[in-house]
Amino acid sequence: MPQNSRRSFLKDLSVGLGAFSIANPLPDLAAEAVPKTPRKLGIALVGLGNYSTKQLAPALESATDCYLSGIVTGTKDKESVWRAKYGIKKANTYNYENFDSIASNDDIDIVYIVLPNSMHAEYTIRAAKAGKHVICEKPMALNAAEGQAMIDACKANGVMLSIGYRLHFDPNTIEIMKLAEERPYGPIKYVQSEAAFAIGNNLDAWRLNRELAGGGAVMDMGIYCIQAARYATGEEPIAIRAQETKTDWGKFKEVDETVTWQMEFPGGAYSNSTTSYNLRANRLYVSYAQGAALLEPATKYTGIKGRVFRGQNPVRTLEVQTVNQQERQMDGFARGVREGIPSIVSGEEGLRDMKVIDALYRSLATGGKRVEI
Amino acid sequence: MPQNSRRSFLKDLSVGLGAFSIANPLPDLAAEAVPKTPRKLGIALVGLGNYSTKQLAPALESATDCYLSGIVTGTKDKESVWRAKYGIKKANTYNYENFDSIASNDDIDIVYIVLPNSMHAEYTIRAAKAGKHVICEKPMALNAAEGQAMIDACKANGVMLSIGYRLHFDPNTIEIMKLAEERPYGPIKYVQSEAAFAIGNNLDAWRLNRELAGGGAVMDMGIYCIQAARYATGEEPIAIRAQETKTDWGKFKEVDETVTWQMEFPGGAYSNSTTSYNLRANRLYVSYAQGAALLEPATKYTGIKGRVFRGQNPVRTLEVQTVNQQERQMDGFARGVREGIPSIVSGEEGLRDMKVIDALYRSLATGGKRVEI
Repeated sequence: MPQNSRRSFLKDLSVGLGAFSIANPLPDLAAEAVPKTPRKLGIALVGLGNYSTKQLAPALESATDCYLSGIVTGTKDKESVWRAKYGIKKANTYNYENFDSIASNDDIDIVYIVLPNSMHAEYTIRAAKAGKHVICEKPMALNAAEGQAMIDACKANGVMLSIGYRLHFDPNTIEIMKLAEERPYGPIKYVQSEAAFAIGNNLDAWRLNRELAGGGAVMDMGIYCIQAARYATGEEPIAIRAQETKTDWGKFKEVDETVTWQMEFPGGAYSNSTTSYNLRANRLYVSYAQGAALLEPATKYTGIKGRVFRGQNPVRTLEVQTVNQQERQMDGFARGVREGIPSIVSGEEGLRDMKVIDALYRSLATGGKRVEI
Repeated sequence: MPQNSRRSFLKDLSVGLGAFSIANPLPDLAAEAVPKTPRKLGIALVGLGNYSTKQLAPALESATDCYLSGIVTGTKDKESVWRAKYGIKKANTYNYENFDSIASNDDIDIVYIVLPNSMHAEYTIRAAKAGKHVICEKPMALNAAEGQAMIDACKANGVMLSIGYRLHFDPNTIEIMKLAEERPYGPIKYVQSEAAFAIGNNLDAWRLNRELAGGGAVMDMGIYCIQAARYATGEEPIAIRAQETKTDWGKFKEVDETVTWQMEFPGGAYSNSTTSYNLRANRLYVSYAQGAALLEPATKYTGIKGRVFRGQNPVRTLEVQTVNQQERQMDGFARGVREGIPSIVSGEEGLRDMKVIDALYRSLATGGKRVEI
């Protein structure tokens, strides 16, 4: 099945408008066969919670390279509402019992896992075995071992894996990445990244459940800070120290409430981050030897803005961009799938964060000792 | 001598324009004797380095309640330059050998210690014994024990002690203090404060010398972050954890280069701070339950600005204020001395920071363990 799926996918292979800088590996002969309007790839959303409802489904309405072709839900009521709203065929509607039969559905090219963290690995692997390309929400898994198993399963089944890192498609965030690559202001000295919000009692209650979420603020929001420090330096951290505090022992009985941590990077940069489920903070600050860059807010769906400084003088404003991050993210993956080009937010990219998170929790468990990554 | 000095000071006692909110303790009879223009108090600067030269002496030129009446320096060349520039009498010029004879000089009411940290305690105590009121630069001492000895000496000699905390006289910083007092946005959840710069090799070389500075970035810049977390919460921290990193083992052989730390406050607030001598960062962010406040930059001599948020919506801009912080600070102390009202940045205020710094270094020494303050 995976091999068939892969072959049928290859028939549709075409070169989309490139969000990717990697050279097109296709021979000239194939280029001549490119249709004028490439087929939109069908995406099935697995899990119809808040993020699917408010962000992904609307983004798929305006997407150019993919569309919402299927849904997977355990809630009968949602099924009828979504089918009516998005004109989804009955045959493209699945539940968690018949999920694996998605393998024979040609309308579904990509499965997007939007389930609680503890189910990411299982459903990614099942989707891979069904021969479907996979987007999995962040964090990709509960830990690096699961993440590696997901990557292995996707490779073994010839499907592509991408993680739901939408910020790689935000123009201002891309500017921060460019500054890390081009280093116009010299070496990177320091990154301060914070991502935190005050979580409600009812919304997404699974996030407060250790078994389902695998952890608290770190898994959900801290991962943005880790990402930010990584793309702001363009380097992988080599060591970490982490600290935890808790003020609401009822609500956060099972998961971390507020965590801070510091990371060492091989080029000498150092980061300090804060994440929390019980306060508001959202910023990325990068200090270069001869300048700085700031995004504040840094991780929101809309409104990301900032400034670039030469020395201490602002030299450029990073204006609010009105792009739909999720639409770009899914379109980018769809084009990559068509072109056979791995996602810029691949499983391997997700795995790097899981390795950091594993080390972070090891540091917390030792009372804040330095842990090598 | 201190008692005489105190008595001669009392003859001049008058009510200045109040920077102080504490009720005037004088009887009505004394109020009738207030002269229209109170005498300006004479200040002697002890140590004519960068801060005295570029900040304090210029500020004293425009001050209304005090003036530069004397200097204490070990450098003959500086003596003549300063005497010429500021019209200082030969008799009001001292060196470190004859410093104690300042006791008999009626032109000098206040001694401002602007020496390397290791000399703060000695010269504050000698000034107190000479019957002079004292302003001492921050950090007030190398540790809390020295700070307590300074407070005791000033009390025993009937003189007032103030620490060079200029930000308490910055209008935008005062807004942050008011928010801590009035709490219009509910409980204080989180403070992020950072103060760091890239230190040169030559300027103020004593700052890189452990014996003279007592420590590195923490002593010089970290104290701003501690102050900020304290005035942003209006509370005293109860525990601290600290982490250190070093990239330049040559320049920072003797002192700390980059340090991060977290503090717990009794009302549940948590802080995360970064200080360094090898990167640039300058910010104060406060997250309240229903709002936030931001100063960026937060500790500069000029240009401090920020915003106040209700929820996540900016509701007020804290515009750049053109006040001279040092002038206000010294005028405020001079009025307090005249009125017999303790400084709002008293020795006790300085001691609170020294206790935190002592705990911070204890935490560093234990590899980042939680230390109660």
